Amino acid sequence: MQAELIAIGTELLLGAVPNDNTAYLARILAGLGISCYRHLTIGDNPGRLREAVESALSRADLVITCGGLGPTVDDVTLETLAQAAGRPLTLNRQVLRRIQRGFRNRSIRMPAAAGRQALLPKGAVCLPNRIGTAPGFMLKLTWRTGAPEHRSTEQEAFKLLIALPGPPWELIPMVEEQLLRRLKPYAGQNVIQSRTLKITGLTEPAVDQKVKDLLQLSGATTVGIYSRPGQVNLTLTARARGAAAASRQIAGLERKIRSRLGKWIFGADQETLEGAVGTLLKTRGWTVGVAESCTGGLVQHRITEVAGSSDYFLGGVVAYANSLKEAPLTVAPSLLKRHGAVSAPVARAMARGVRDLTQADIGLSLTGIAGPTGGSKTKPVGLVYIGLSSAEGSRVVRFRFPGSRPMVKFRASQAALNLLRRYCLKAS
Amino acid sequence: MQAELIAIGTELLLGAVPNDNTAYLARILAGLGISCYRHLTIGDNPGRLREAVESALSRADLVITCGGLGPTVDDVTLETLAQAAGRPLTLNRQVLRRIQRGFRNRSIRMPAAAGRQALLPKGAVCLPNRIGTAPGFMLKLTWRTGAPEHRSTEQEAFKLLIALPGPPWELIPMVEEQLLRRLKPYAGQNVIQSRTLKITGLTEPAVDQKVKDLLQLSGATTVGIYSRPGQVNLTLTARARGAAAASRQIAGLERKIRSRLGKWIFGADQETLEGAVGTLLKTRGWTVGVAESCTGGLVQHRITEVAGSSDYFLGGVVAYANSLKEAPLTVAPSLLKRHGAVSAPVARAMARGVRDLTQADIGLSLTGIAGPTGGSKTKPVGLVYIGLSSAEGSRVVRFRFPGSRPMVKFRASQAALNLLRRYCLKAS
Repeated sequence: MQAELIAIGTELLLGAVPNDNTAYLARILAGLGISCYRHLTIGDNPGRLREAVESALSRADLVITCGGLGPTVDDVTLETLAQAAGRPLTLNRQVLRRIQRGFRNRSIRMPAAAGRQALLPKGAVCLPNRIGTAPGFMLKLTWRTGAPEHRSTEQEAFKLLIALPGPPWELIPMVEEQLLRRLKPYAGQNVIQSRTLKITGLTEPAVDQKVKDLLQLSGATTVGIYSRPGQVNLTLTARARGAAAASRQIAGLERKIRSRLGKWIFGADQETLEGAVGTLLKTRGWTVGVAESCTGGLVQHRITEVAGSSDYFLGGVVAYANSLKEAPLTVAPSLLKRHGAVSAPVARAMARGVRDLTQADIGLSLTGIAGPTGGSKTKPVGLVYIGLSSAEGSRVVRFRFPGSRPMVKFRASQAALNLLRRYCLKAS
Repeated sequence: MQAELIAIGTELLLGAVPNDNTAYLARILAGLGISCYRHLTIGDNPGRLREAVESALSRADLVITCGGLGPTVDDVTLETLAQAAGRPLTLNRQVLRRIQRGFRNRSIRMPAAAGRQALLPKGAVCLPNRIGTAPGFMLKLTWRTGAPEHRSTEQEAFKLLIALPGPPWELIPMVEEQLLRRLKPYAGQNVIQSRTLKITGLTEPAVDQKVKDLLQLSGATTVGIYSRPGQVNLTLTARARGAAAASRQIAGLERKIRSRLGKWIFGADQETLEGAVGTLLKTRGWTVGVAESCTGGLVQHRITEVAGSSDYFLGGVVAYANSLKEAPLTVAPSLLKRHGAVSAPVARAMARGVRDLTQADIGLSLTGIAGPTGGSKTKPVGLVYIGLSSAEGSRVVRFRFPGSRPMVKFRASQAALNLLRRYCLKAS
């Protein structure tokens, strides 16, 4: 079964409100194993809407619209869908009574226009709206195919047309309480499952090199590559008969990818880099303290996004002014003078200093130039030194990050967390 | 001029990543008075993509695609658009040199696949990518119309095909620095303008009460209300002949709203709360130091997102462990013992302590329970004390924030920045 989604609303075409329904419905369809090849957004214009619905119905077996079911004059979905489906609108007395009761309960006189919402295309199954007034509907359009002289080859063909309300707080309960069970019979035996492996420390082209053959897969299993700042995601998708078979295919692909990318992969799906670091520190029983300059607190903010991080994170210093590098971080003024605040020796001294101050097992430090100003020929914007100090000694790594100020800050925080992660891994 | 938008990416069709580009581009077009009647999302499938682009070009004068320009094999946009436009791909040496230089600066060997991104359809104007490697392009397809025997009625007709990269952090600078001025000549007369006023410190129902009459406007000017964590936005929209008339309508509405909500409004459009705080501190010539416990560095991270924040932000401490509250923040151990770390006296002492440590004009402090564990009957999850210390003395405000751990952290950072903002305002 193939589906298309149509979101209706002039405010969507203007970009005035975000269109969250489409992504939500797309995930619902994927979970049911129903393929979806097109998402369209169109305004409250009867002519263009009718053309869009008719053309979607000509390609797909299932067309879901959302929006435009309200009581106001610019809500044209109902009439237009009825016309596209060739069905007259009929009054649904049950829906009318629900709407009338709703107004009575709120002691508001019902406006005449509200009654319009009790109309449904003939033959449609009503999807009651628990939150608002406008119901949705599901309409099965059937016909017989095959040449009449060959009765044995004659078959029933059908298309499904579903209309849902626009406000997400009305649409989501309607989908979960009413629509899901009505769509179950049409679920593909072909279940679609996906899993995202998250990589940091390698560029997109470098990851691409290592899994080029897998990226060219097409058919039941595919691998997609998506770059985010300081991170590359590989999304593994399997289409299989039943959830167990899909899981097996995903697991097979994942083994292959892990054998090539190994420890560059820090997590999967909802896992975060700060979460991965936290798990490792907890396992080792280690604590960490952080001294930040250019990242301005971002590394510590990310570490403390993880519930329970107080088990391994003691705290730290945001040493924006040099005076804070000298005290409490005890970086020697001569070092700052000789090498400048953005230098390997200062990064090393900051890591040691914050380790002493917090009495942590590991001291992590960052000093660099976030930009957009403050760069020079020898110390350009994006230059960042990251230091790590432990009982074993200390190390400093030099980085040069591209992008805007927030981007440099984020990429630096990503590299610092990854340095900490890899230190924990190597210590095993 | 009529436009259509096409977002490209299988991950979008699966609802795996949000599609923020479409709404952004829609607002850009609305601001230029260019009508847009359709937004389409389609996967990385050459056949379906080509059909979609050709059909969009048959209806609209301007077609903008985003996504699929990356270096990997599943990025099919470039070849497909070139085919749809009937133009061969040619190597752009300038782009190739930029890509090579980017890899050299970061001391990474350039993979062969990265060179693919230097190809552009013949005749296309390159839109350089300041953040990533893949450039965008703008292609003007022209032909002559009119019967050949009537040379005087012959006219040049054209369509514009524009391709932009998928990552928003690459697309937005490209649009604002390159595309906008190239689209200006095609701007329409019926301009739609909108402006968002941002409010913090009031709930959505409280804002709703104050502007109820304006929320019911329909026609040439409208006001919409959208709630976000720790913030309420009012979006003012005006439709008028010409930018000047639209601006006048927006300005009139804004005056009305400001007269009712005054200093609760911290900024408009792209302005941020941390930016507003920065501007005020700069004007006053004041500096600030921050001591954070429950927010774990988020307040300092937000302050340092603003370019030039080193002018007024000196630094601070993330005092997660109590030992860091004692030194370097000099909170008396007896205070911690008597009242607990999450208390008004400790918040006050932290604000004073960080002011002394950093030698700033203002010390700001936060101590609270971010959750999900660690709460008790008397000190529940979401309880946060925020302190502010200056030469005039100190104050502490008690808050109770709802939501998850990241939400409590964010709302606390929002309240702390707003406390600082209001302190700067009152001092005038």
